[in-house]
Amino acid sequence: MLIDLRSDTVTRPTPGMKEAMFAAPVGDDVFGEDPTVNALEEKIAKLFGMEAALFCPSGTMTNQIAIRLHTRIQTEVICHQYSHIYLYEGGGIMANSHASVKLLPGDLGKITASQIAESINPDDVHAPETTLVSLENTMNKGGGSIYTLEEIKPIHAFCKEKDIKLHLDGARLFNALVESGESPAEWGAHFDTISICLSKGLGCPIGSVLLGSKADIKRARKVRKVFGGGMRQAGFLAAAGIYALDHQVLRLKEDHARARALGEMLGKLSVVSEIFPVATNIVIAKLEGTTPEEFMKKLADHQIKSVKFGKDLVRFVTHLDFGDEALEEFGRRLRIIFG
Amino acid sequence: MLIDLRSDTVTRPTPGMKEAMFAAPVGDDVFGEDPTVNALEEKIAKLFGMEAALFCPSGTMTNQIAIRLHTRIQTEVICHQYSHIYLYEGGGIMANSHASVKLLPGDLGKITASQIAESINPDDVHAPETTLVSLENTMNKGGGSIYTLEEIKPIHAFCKEKDIKLHLDGARLFNALVESGESPAEWGAHFDTISICLSKGLGCPIGSVLLGSKADIKRARKVRKVFGGGMRQAGFLAAAGIYALDHQVLRLKEDHARARALGEMLGKLSVVSEIFPVATNIVIAKLEGTTPEEFMKKLADHQIKSVKFGKDLVRFVTHLDFGDEALEEFGRRLRIIFG
Amino acid sequence: MLIDLRSDTVTRPTPGMKEAMFAAPVGDDVFGEDPTVNALEEKIAKLFGMEAALFCPSGTMTNQIAIRLHTRIQTEVICHQYSHIYLYEGGGIMANSHASVKLLPGDLGKITASQIAESINPDDVHAPETTLVSLENTMNKGGGSIYTLEEIKPIHAFCKEKDIKLHLDGARLFNALVESGESPAEWGAHFDTISICLSKGLGCPIGSVLLGSKADIKRARKVRKVFGGGMRQAGFLAAAGIYALDHQVLRLKEDHARARALGEMLGKLSVVSEIFPVATNIVIAKLEGTTPEEFMKKLADHQIKSVKFGKDLVRFVTHLDFGDEALEEFGRRLRIIFG
Amino acid sequence: MLIDLRSDTVTRPTPGMKEAMFAAPVGDDVFGEDPTVNALEEKIAKLFGMEAALFCPSGTMTNQIAIRLHTRIQTEVICHQYSHIYLYEGGGIMANSHASVKLLPGDLGKITASQIAESINPDDVHAPETTLVSLENTMNKGGGSIYTLEEIKPIHAFCKEKDIKLHLDGARLFNALVESGESPAEWGAHFDTISICLSKGLGCPIGSVLLGSKADIKRARKVRKVFGGGMRQAGFLAAAGIYALDHQVLRLKEDHARARALGEMLGKLSVVSEIFPVATNIVIAKLEGTTPEEFMKKLADHQIKSVKFGKDLVRFVTHLDFGDEALEEFGRRLRIIFG
Repeated sequence: MLIDLRSDTVTRPTPGMKEAMFAAPVGDDVFGEDPTVNALEEKIAKLFGMEAALFCPSGTMTNQIAIRLHTRIQTEVICHQYSHIYLYEGGGIMANSHASVKLLPGDLGKITASQIAESINPDDVHAPETTLVSLENTMNKGGGSIYTLEEIKPIHAFCKEKDIKLHLDGARLFNALVESGESPAEWGAHFDTISICLSKGLGCPIGSVLLGSKADIKRARKVRKVFGGGMRQAGFLAAAGIYALDHQVLRLKEDHARARALGEMLGKLSVVSEIFPVATNIVIAKLEGTTPEEFMKKLADHQIKSVKFGKDLVRFVTHLDFGDEALEEFGRRLRIIFG
Repeated sequence: MLIDLRSDTVTRPTPGMKEAMFAAPVGDDVFGEDPTVNALEEKIAKLFGMEAALFCPSGTMTNQIAIRLHTRIQTEVICHQYSHIYLYEGGGIMANSHASVKLLPGDLGKITASQIAESINPDDVHAPETTLVSLENTMNKGGGSIYTLEEIKPIHAFCKEKDIKLHLDGARLFNALVESGESPAEWGAHFDTISICLSKGLGCPIGSVLLGSKADIKRARKVRKVFGGGMRQAGFLAAAGIYALDHQVLRLKEDHARARALGEMLGKLSVVSEIFPVATNIVIAKLEGTTPEEFMKKLADHQIKSVKFGKDLVRFVTHLDFGDEALEEFGRRLRIIFG
Repeated sequence: MLIDLRSDTVTRPTPGMKEAMFAAPVGDDVFGEDPTVNALEEKIAKLFGMEAALFCPSGTMTNQIAIRLHTRIQTEVICHQYSHIYLYEGGGIMANSHASVKLLPGDLGKITASQIAESINPDDVHAPETTLVSLENTMNKGGGSIYTLEEIKPIHAFCKEKDIKLHLDGARLFNALVESGESPAEWGAHFDTISICLSKGLGCPIGSVLLGSKADIKRARKVRKVFGGGMRQAGFLAAAGIYALDHQVLRLKEDHARARALGEMLGKLSVVSEIFPVATNIVIAKLEGTTPEEFMKKLADHQIKSVKFGKDLVRFVTHLDFGDEALEEFGRRLRIIFG
Repeated sequence: MLIDLRSDTVTRPTPGMKEAMFAAPVGDDVFGEDPTVNALEEKIAKLFGMEAALFCPSGTMTNQIAIRLHTRIQTEVICHQYSHIYLYEGGGIMANSHASVKLLPGDLGKITASQIAESINPDDVHAPETTLVSLENTMNKGGGSIYTLEEIKPIHAFCKEKDIKLHLDGARLFNALVESGESPAEWGAHFDTISICLSKGLGCPIGSVLLGSKADIKRARKVRKVFGGGMRQAGFLAAAGIYALDHQVLRLKEDHARARALGEMLGKLSVVSEIFPVATNIVIAKLEGTTPEEFMKKLADHQIKSVKFGKDLVRFVTHLDFGDEALEEFGRRLRIIFG
């Protein structure tokens, strides 16, 4: 049995989800006529208390569209130096929106209102104008760390005051919400745009949703077109999203429990010097006396896949194809490999 | 019964295609591990005799990626003034690649090698460098007109000589090939990149494929990422493409026959002054004594949908959801409306 | 004696202008402290009744800044197909602002309000949003043709109504004004931004000025910075501009008279089939029975320089280094060459 | 007497330089016909042992052109986090070239080959391709710190090996060279492009020069055009550059001596906790018990100008308008203000 912990994107749809997909009524979404896409967009917008939503082929696209909406050439985005939008989206902030980046440090991948306040550029010809702050929740490179609403509120207040837009890369937001017990609508009230990924822990094969005001989503539709993200009978994919929202949100807690168990197992290894606090479904192990390459090779030889996540870091992500049996098997193989 | 002739993109998958989709093995295509996506890419690359292929969510994306591959800032693309890449892709040549356009006139949307030769910019600071010629076959705004290989060869030879890349927007290339009898491989031999749309006449719900050299497709994969076109378990969609290539290519001839019949019916109307030559599945009617809005309203009142295609032009496109019965019904309604 | 009629940019400063340049007080203009630059900007803004002005190293820069101000990615500029901003600025509309172009035909390089009205894109995902109309006066490729205010007014009214910005490439606007007798202030009232070139007929060595609202010029200063157009002790150059405005505007009429005389001489040649109407200081000769290369070679052999301006067109431009004596000498050489 | 130590850009040309400017033969440099511009370009290219040079209106332009030459969309530039190209050029890396930035820390604004080696992105769709390393010598934000050739060599070797371009922002390179005694030609041999500013310590009113291969400078000329940096009779400005190279290089050592003296004076103030090592003509004072605003206000009240350079930093720059008398007067005023 392959135990693939590289990412929660590797899951295949459950039988229930597949059934929902192939039963979905579809139409041409470029004409706005796919009933299932429309239903998903309405459903999720309502859930977050936001005006409108847009279904896109990926979370990179929803993030990149949001950045385009909130920047112009010669403006700047403030984000954590380990943000997904900066590190893993092909340089899209610069490539797609030609905006500059102000990269802030911060524990567990999080930044604060006071850091942001110090990073606003002066109104001067030498520096680009700061127009956007982008946060990520949960924070991938922070080990799946969680922002609470209490941390968001001063950032939101500061941005409002300075007329700076606030975007949330909520690729794994539901992982945060099932832990914190906070509601989607509370989060919707604190951001201009939110990107939600359906193909991570939620288990859909394809798709992300961008949430925002009607005006922003109208513009987003135009940006999606020029990026080539307009799809035709996308209802097959949207149906999976509806199914996931209805049936696969609460089970994220199981992924978190298994991640904690997995973190404990890894933490006992002599080659692991530290496990980042396990807040959700991501486990980051810091190695000592070995390299990620060597460590991962040993695991791979026993059919366990993980990803290198820095000079001495390895990441494991739990997901719906990683159940209790797999967890137990993971432990058994660890013992075989490392004694 | 609604007769929707706005575009061949409105079709829904046939039962056979849906079955193939549902049964497809899938994986995470961002890791290059979706077996069905890989199979489609190999199959179509082989068909065209090209090295590699890349599956994307739309034809706009495959075209826009190709343009990015073959241009840099301060270069220029030569194309017909009515090209899809210029008119209908959100200004993507400029927005995505920041390249300039040289827009040429030409009957039925086609341009010639001698026109291109006259349009190359001099090597001078004042003008962008010409690096790409892009053709479209069939040509949508030319009424589905067909380029023959004989027309392509001098263009290809000229571009080779001048080290200018040649791209084909082959959104409806199979419509041309089933009429001309030319082979995909002959076409593959004359272009640096070809974009093929699966969700038009071929009847897939979603997807296009970009064909090119291994090096170009490797770079294309990076551009797809930054546009947000990397999808996860895309095999469900790719399976439809494989099915279409196996079962739904030859039937395009039926669409063409029905388009000719439809053109004849429209041509007899007193408000239609001219029908563009019907070469494939597109019928463009030129109106007189009425406006597109008024004409289309009358049709819509009888459940026939079409699209405005210029100041006095209306377009009809035949497709796999428009069979003989629908054709007959179309004629009946025309008689009811126009007598 | 070399008779250089390639462009009115080839002039060298008059003794009076040079004296003014080297007597000018200067400071660091990046800090906004060059008194002579400030004086020029105020003087010309006042002359046109506009709020503010910005001195730049070239007319390409003032035009390109204006385009940046009035566009965003995925917007479109409407202009004549032979506009300087499209043909001769390195593809800057696309390269600098990533905006699309709608290129209109029109006699003598001029376009009308009704053409513009027909060219506005619909509010639809497929097309970029029209945000700018750019005119050129005098129109270089139209043979130095003149727009009158009466022609501008309906364009201005239409743009106002549609909330589309209106820019004037007034590289040679003073040539138009000395002929029409219209005032700079009347022109200033009809445009959002105007670019004025000081180094053409006005005879300065370097520099152009962009005129606009205070808010636009503030943003323009930032764009100038990022293009690298911020200069330090630029007062030496600005002093030439002040001198030109004070002493070298009215003499443009002499250039026009000499251009008419020159046009008549050329028009008598058997190899010249047509002279474009000579409205200002530009003469475009259409050739027959010879090529521009051959024709220009004969002239060059007798120390007369001109430029190719199309497949069968050659352009001559009169300027302050081309006086009556040179005109006479030009005629003498023509007779020697062509008999 | 105003003592302006904000920057070495505030200097006015010396009488000898002005005379040279006034006497310079000029032509139209857009046609490549300004003899003085050509002479400057040849002179400085030869001095650095590089193939070609291009005169531009500013150092921002020469840097931004170099970045354009060595990047494409979806590539990345490695530089120190306090680089001028990132902090003070309007976000131009992103705005003009749409390239991403990898920002490295490092003492006194300098980075090392091993840091660079660790920062190269993997060949993967998620990250932009690293194509350029950019260094700055002297390093403005490092307090005018100097890179030695010995530090450059391993960086150069690494870049060569990896086929990564190496650019030098040499705005104040001559300040480094007069201290280190290294030759321009040795530096020219280690970089693909070098930007040299003429309007800083060298005392010219306007202008910078970009050095590189013939092929790169040919392309640079096209980029300069699209940025609007092509100037007409620029020989007046180039003449100042020639004069400066002939007469005003060695005197930079005087600026450095005065900077050291000035640093010592400032270092004795109780509100100054630290003076950055004074390597050339820049003095950065770290404050304690006061703010830059308050400190600078006190100086300004006594006609001394400086600039804020961080939360608790103030910068002073010596230059040719700051002689021994001014230095003594500076000391006198410090005593008056701070006792």
